[in-house]
Amino acid sequence: MTQPAGGRIAVAMRMHPGPGGLHTIAGVIARHRGDIKSVDIASETDQEARVYLEIELPGELSSAQLVDDLRALPVVTDVMLVNTLQNIYGKRVIIMGGGAQVGQVAIGAISEADRHNIRGERISVDTIPLVGEAALADAVRAVARLPRARALVLAGALMGGDIERAVREVRERGLLVVSLNMAGSVPDAADLVVTDPVQAGVMTVMAIADTAKFTVDRLQRRIF
Amino acid sequence: MTQPAGGRIAVAMRMHPGPGGLHTIAGVIARHRGDIKSVDIASETDQEARVYLEIELPGELSSAQLVDDLRALPVVTDVMLVNTLQNIYGKRVIIMGGGAQVGQVAIGAISEADRHNIRGERISVDTIPLVGEAALADAVRAVARLPRARALVLAGALMGGDIERAVREVRERGLLVVSLNMAGSVPDAADLVVTDPVQAGVMTVMAIADTAKFTVDRLQRRIF
Repeated sequence: MTQPAGGRIAVAMRMHPGPGGLHTIAGVIARHRGDIKSVDIASETDQEARVYLEIELPGELSSAQLVDDLRALPVVTDVMLVNTLQNIYGKRVIIMGGGAQVGQVAIGAISEADRHNIRGERISVDTIPLVGEAALADAVRAVARLPRARALVLAGALMGGDIERAVREVRERGLLVVSLNMAGSVPDAADLVVTDPVQAGVMTVMAIADTAKFTVDRLQRRIF
Repeated sequence: MTQPAGGRIAVAMRMHPGPGGLHTIAGVIARHRGDIKSVDIASETDQEARVYLEIELPGELSSAQLVDDLRALPVVTDVMLVNTLQNIYGKRVIIMGGGAQVGQVAIGAISEADRHNIRGERISVDTIPLVGEAALADAVRAVARLPRARALVLAGALMGGDIERAVREVRERGLLVVSLNMAGSVPDAADLVVTDPVQAGVMTVMAIADTAKFTVDRLQRRIF
């Protein structure tokens, strides 16, 4: 890894486990005017915690001094600069609903993501088969809390009620929502309605890909 | 949301943006003997940051007092208890490699996850089509940093070299690795080698599902 000046950096640390450690680390990062964007305790035993952080550094600052200062903390045993998850896994398309439809949408989305990733993009296709209005509404709302999520495909035969409200909420937060042509009110709430599941997957990936000439806002219709 | 005493809780907050805010929050949580497990800045504008935290609380403590103390911070504008991502999206199977094979493994894994999720589990199937030894080795190693990842399927026609080393590293960290029957040294390094991609997806989900009677350690052979 080179040590870039400024921008988003990612740090993998090993440290002594337990409450308070993160507070100490956050203090050092704040003194460097770093802005913590994510933290994950990747694993934790009685002896050791593995912690993964992504940090935004001001333009003129080098990551080397920050890494040295973190390494000097008694609670820290090892610090390594790594690639960000954005660089490795990139933007995420989330597909949820019935297993039969989710699988077919995934086929289309994965094939299309392959074509863009070969040209240097990074697009992931993440799925969960789920049943029930409450479970799906909860999962739709939680997409807003998933890192790097850019688009959601609702792949089922009947979805409405609180799922429709959840779709409108996440669209307001900037998420693109595509719906299969199905019963219920979710298609009315989506940005785009696509009848063929493979095509739905392809179109969703095209809509978020930088290497595709496809813009939802410029479409003459929203149902395909 | 009920307010459980102890265990893992999830909090969605709105706060003023900028460096140092997380340090303040981590201080309050440490005073409550809470152990921060993950933090994500879900979105950030000049006016507002949306922050999502998961926190482990000691058994006897209620989350209500912690939420009140967070809400009282000047930097915080809103605090809401929400469902954890573990409860909503559950364990993750990660599939990576060539688009054709990743799509077929996904079909098997999604169908099988559907059968378990209907019985109350939560299993997600997450994928990325990727090409190239360095890109794949990097992506394999980064699975150790992905929250809730439990198993990895390598779905390609030829994988070896540094990808093999990365597979051995993540297996040592407790990840189950399944490989398609392919050229290169990755099948030698995997827990399980499966020839049919749909079957590979099904078996991987069965191996991590609580509702399945399938244990990799009890298999009489590792190549199918």
